[in-house]
Amino acid sequence: MDKKIRVTVWNEFRHEIKHEKVKAVYPNGLHTVIGEGLLAAGDFEVQYAWLDKDAEHGLSEEVLSNTDVLIWWGHCAHGEVKDEIVDRVQKHIQQGMGLIVLHSGHFSKIFKRMMGTTCSLKWREAAEKERIWTVESAHPIAQGLPEHFELPHTEMYGERFDIPTPKDVVFITWYEGGEVFRSGVTFERGYGRIFYFAPGHETFPIYYDENIRKVIANAARWAAPRIRKEITCPSVQALEEIKSK
Amino acid sequence: MDKKIRVTVWNEFRHEIKHEKVKAVYPNGLHTVIGEGLLAAGDFEVQYAWLDKDAEHGLSEEVLSNTDVLIWWGHCAHGEVKDEIVDRVQKHIQQGMGLIVLHSGHFSKIFKRMMGTTCSLKWREAAEKERIWTVESAHPIAQGLPEHFELPHTEMYGERFDIPTPKDVVFITWYEGGEVFRSGVTFERGYGRIFYFAPGHETFPIYYDENIRKVIANAARWAAPRIRKEITCPSVQALEEIKSK
Amino acid sequence: MDKKIRVTVWNEFRHEIKHEKVKAVYPNGLHTVIGEGLLAAGDFEVQYAWLDKDAEHGLSEEVLSNTDVLIWWGHCAHGEVKDEIVDRVQKHIQQGMGLIVLHSGHFSKIFKRMMGTTCSLKWREAAEKERIWTVESAHPIAQGLPEHFELPHTEMYGERFDIPTPKDVVFITWYEGGEVFRSGVTFERGYGRIFYFAPGHETFPIYYDENIRKVIANAARWAAPRIRKEITCPSVQALEEIKSK
Amino acid sequence: MDKKIRVTVWNEFRHEIKHEKVKAVYPNGLHTVIGEGLLAAGDFEVQYAWLDKDAEHGLSEEVLSNTDVLIWWGHCAHGEVKDEIVDRVQKHIQQGMGLIVLHSGHFSKIFKRMMGTTCSLKWREAAEKERIWTVESAHPIAQGLPEHFELPHTEMYGERFDIPTPKDVVFITWYEGGEVFRSGVTFERGYGRIFYFAPGHETFPIYYDENIRKVIANAARWAAPRIRKEITCPSVQALEEIKSK
Repeated sequence: MDKKIRVTVWNEFRHEIKHEKVKAVYPNGLHTVIGEGLLAAGDFEVQYAWLDKDAEHGLSEEVLSNTDVLIWWGHCAHGEVKDEIVDRVQKHIQQGMGLIVLHSGHFSKIFKRMMGTTCSLKWREAAEKERIWTVESAHPIAQGLPEHFELPHTEMYGERFDIPTPKDVVFITWYEGGEVFRSGVTFERGYGRIFYFAPGHETFPIYYDENIRKVIANAARWAAPRIRKEITCPSVQALEEIKSK
Repeated sequence: MDKKIRVTVWNEFRHEIKHEKVKAVYPNGLHTVIGEGLLAAGDFEVQYAWLDKDAEHGLSEEVLSNTDVLIWWGHCAHGEVKDEIVDRVQKHIQQGMGLIVLHSGHFSKIFKRMMGTTCSLKWREAAEKERIWTVESAHPIAQGLPEHFELPHTEMYGERFDIPTPKDVVFITWYEGGEVFRSGVTFERGYGRIFYFAPGHETFPIYYDENIRKVIANAARWAAPRIRKEITCPSVQALEEIKSK
Repeated sequence: MDKKIRVTVWNEFRHEIKHEKVKAVYPNGLHTVIGEGLLAAGDFEVQYAWLDKDAEHGLSEEVLSNTDVLIWWGHCAHGEVKDEIVDRVQKHIQQGMGLIVLHSGHFSKIFKRMMGTTCSLKWREAAEKERIWTVESAHPIAQGLPEHFELPHTEMYGERFDIPTPKDVVFITWYEGGEVFRSGVTFERGYGRIFYFAPGHETFPIYYDENIRKVIANAARWAAPRIRKEITCPSVQALEEIKSK
Repeated sequence: MDKKIRVTVWNEFRHEIKHEKVKAVYPNGLHTVIGEGLLAAGDFEVQYAWLDKDAEHGLSEEVLSNTDVLIWWGHCAHGEVKDEIVDRVQKHIQQGMGLIVLHSGHFSKIFKRMMGTTCSLKWREAAEKERIWTVESAHPIAQGLPEHFELPHTEMYGERFDIPTPKDVVFITWYEGGEVFRSGVTFERGYGRIFYFAPGHETFPIYYDENIRKVIANAARWAAPRIRKEITCPSVQALEEIKSK
């Protein structure tokens, strides 16, 4: 039997506690709904972590060493994530751990750290319709997805999205209000793979959607480590005789 | 008359003070030799900054606002560069300022910040020969350079170089000791352009070399801002009527 | 005084002769309207060529040798372009000539030749509105363009557009009918630069539009040769002594 | 049990018949040695095809429809491969079949067709040493390969290699004679994946080498179809009401 992919779903987990509207959609936190989607797929082990779980935001060295893919959802408290934890997560990504950043996580410390850019975009909360177009149909993350699929109500995230040129633009979104967005994009940093996926506003039941769940499961399979090892900067001996001295 | 490109050459400027061997090659600091190369080209204005110039390492908001392209050389004191100055330089790059990172600057805070990776590599100080191959002959940075050119004595920097996939691999180096290196690579982050160029060990007179000077001048022209403006994350009004609510 | 960029605008020039509706919009051929836009910019010399101009479709060796950038518009007679002329155009692009492919030129022999893919897409003639979003604001092709601009009536070209991953996705289009499209994309092949730009259906006055003209002029400046020379496959002497024999 | 990957190894198969020196190394054709390497890996089914096998060079519609990955080795008779067969192979790649092009196949019709460039390079037959550096250690094609490995005698293929910017530069070669080469590079075209790998001169026993066999097996796994379907250019109905008419 193949080993299961070990996913840690990290959620800020503040909105669901403070806002009735969010609690109504995600009573146990949106991380649990993302996790349920993965568990239903059958090939994942899932654990959860959140900002206030413990002094390390639930992301101890041990947790990360046993995580194949980290999923990140945050919004109102990006600034409360400790820099030392961001350093640690970055190190694990560089050494091979996968990272999936969702929705408002575009402004998380860890995503900005991995990109080097501001990760800014245009936004609007108008409960409008979103239609996601599959641009790279052959990409593993698009496996089994239709040519286009819709979310009836979404927060708009529009271009220009200030990111480095992605490795692949897997999805592009059309918004009812007139914008477009590179809504599913991949990057590689060190030995690690990164997928950013735009859908997921906390007041809409987006993580219950079957297509969205399929994208996240595909992305977790794609981002699972291919190798995992330390990256060093060694002084090395010459392999050929040096006569120039 | 075209306006000149305003280059600020930043040098750590410690080796030249402490080590006789380095002082012998670069008595006034290697930044001045890089600057002389640019001034000889005729289309640059050059100013200098260094780690101990002032409390801001010579990189005040005013200096950076009046800098088109920042050249960065550092080695033994990367850790002494203040994080707030790195933040400032990053912001200016994102908003359009060019950055040229030289040699041991691969491990500078600003380069690692822009890349998101460890920027590690293999290295060896054996005074060996380096032959630089022009891979993208049509790239502006390769303009006027031969198909290959040599440095008689160099520090070896070898693969694997832990960087994101470059926009362009302009140069690849062959080393006498048996390694290869993507020695001239480009990136774009935000509105800014970044060029990393490997040659430049402090004990060899590399920045006096005519081909090296041509590469740096070409890179400074290429990296000069195309636009320069703040990147914001605005809430925007819909451009089309939203009926989904 | 800087030398002007020499653009050859190639048009199939059949629709304008056969169809009254097209003739009404482009009485002298749409190539002349594209050319007028370039001439108004001031830094271009323009000549015209078309399918039935002569036995070489107006693209003799001499014409191409004196062309910096070739603009291509074709639609109903792609198959009538002779393979030997396509070979010739390809050779000139590889050696440094720029190519701008417009609208239905996505299915031209020369574009498919340079891409290696089918260049297929979805399409619809419904006179709908198109809004073009500038994704890479700092790219030379986007210079002076707003964050978004509109065409009131357009033919829809939708994803998935079967092209290799572009060097840059400069523009993405939003369509009233619900699709998206990577409508302005760049490629480099050999020493030559290629820009594909989607707008330009023959029954709409799109090439009179100021923003569209700005894009085409910017693209022609960007695609002008950086170097121009033959690409050979030479046998070469060793640069270092070979002892392995 | 997982289904095996079906590889068709295509060889020009002329050198081995005409030249004693080649026959001595590859008495049954180098395709059989490449095939043996794959069969030893255990997860491949292998069939062979060659230029003179039949009127279709062994590449009938049926053969290609039942091929997951096509490996291509050719040298002195590229021009004898019929254009209609090249068209057919191209169509299958666009629809998802993988392609691995080896050594002198850089000048094959099918590789030039997929690239759009001349695919020229520098070359030298001097039996020199080649050291292959793994640049993207996490890439599936590099799985299990060391940081560097050597071939004691090789034909030199040197930069500039006239190819489009690869998706990934997996390997870079150091040559004893002083050149470098992007010796393992990936591309995606349509739904298909393409890997070019430089080693493989017909007078050296390179396809018996364990590291080379590992690269080819890894590449065949990586290039196996993710999806396989026809690419069409359909006229489509609007998904949203169009009011602009």
